[in-house]
Amino acid sequence: MDKLVLKPIGTIKSPFNSIEGMPIQPTGAGGAHGQIELLPEYLDGLQDLEDFSHVILIYQFHKSKGYELKVKPFMDDQLRGIFSTRAPKRPNPIGISVVKLLKIEDNILHIENIDVLNETPLLDIKPYISNIDNIQDIKIGWLEGKSEEMSSKKSDKRFYNE
Amino acid sequence: MDKLVLKPIGTIKSPFNSIEGMPIQPTGAGGAHGQIELLPEYLDGLQDLEDFSHVILIYQFHKSKGYELKVKPFMDDQLRGIFSTRAPKRPNPIGISVVKLLKIEDNILHIENIDVLNETPLLDIKPYISNIDNIQDIKIGWLEGKSEEMSSKKSDKRFYNE
Repeated sequence: MDKLVLKPIGTIKSPFNSIEGMPIQPTGAGGAHGQIELLPEYLDGLQDLEDFSHVILIYQFHKSKGYELKVKPFMDDQLRGIFSTRAPKRPNPIGISVVKLLKIEDNILHIENIDVLNETPLLDIKPYISNIDNIQDIKIGWLEGKSEEMSSKKSDKRFYNE
Repeated sequence: MDKLVLKPIGTIKSPFNSIEGMPIQPTGAGGAHGQIELLPEYLDGLQDLEDFSHVILIYQFHKSKGYELKVKPFMDDQLRGIFSTRAPKRPNPIGISVVKLLKIEDNILHIENIDVLNETPLLDIKPYISNIDNIQDIKIGWLEGKSEEMSSKKSDKRFYNE
């Protein structure tokens, strides 16, 4: 299969300059504010977006080098298959986060509940749409019973090479 | 910013060999079944995944060439900014879909509600986790009032070069 070459469309600015202490998920970000600096060449693509309350960010885990097929996630003390986790050391180091969209000023998007490192390269922005992204009656495997804890859990360096 | 080079981890098999008539979203896929053929080298990464009911697939819109910053989405007759739509002609042609995971047999994942073209290159699999992916109290901008229609809407060729 052919390789796919992607070019960042902007940068995510967040309060988190270091892995240590970063929330591991948007729900743990406690309302942390951030900004997206979209490259000006993509400005026209932002039309109509401000009427959505939440957006899905797709970004590069730019501090993660290489990958492991079994990892010990922040939420567990056992090795789990990488595809059953949201850990960054993935074969393709791509992350997704749903964040609240506060406002847009020119090419700057102000966002809330951001859980990524400062200067993270952004690959895409998609609107969060209830009837396709909001799934009911789900089972969450090894995370069952741990979801409360997830909201307060902070990151450490296990998946990064700084 | 540096370019990011990704290598597909497998292929998505679906009943949709042509763009015309393909559901535009998983909720419109009416239970369509498909399979993921994961490359055998990534097999160990599937451990623990079968206990999750839903997974998020990240894939390449491999039939979409180039991009447009304003598009007329399937759900509308007005031009909308590409980032306020889920249309495939994006600066980085990456799609995401939440699908139901039926079972896993070796490197084959059986999935339901698949809404992508047959032979779509797969980039990542992530578990769908209720308390980070299931967002309440959302606004969906120009899609307000159109979400029922979205479930039955089928694709046409407008975004593809076949």
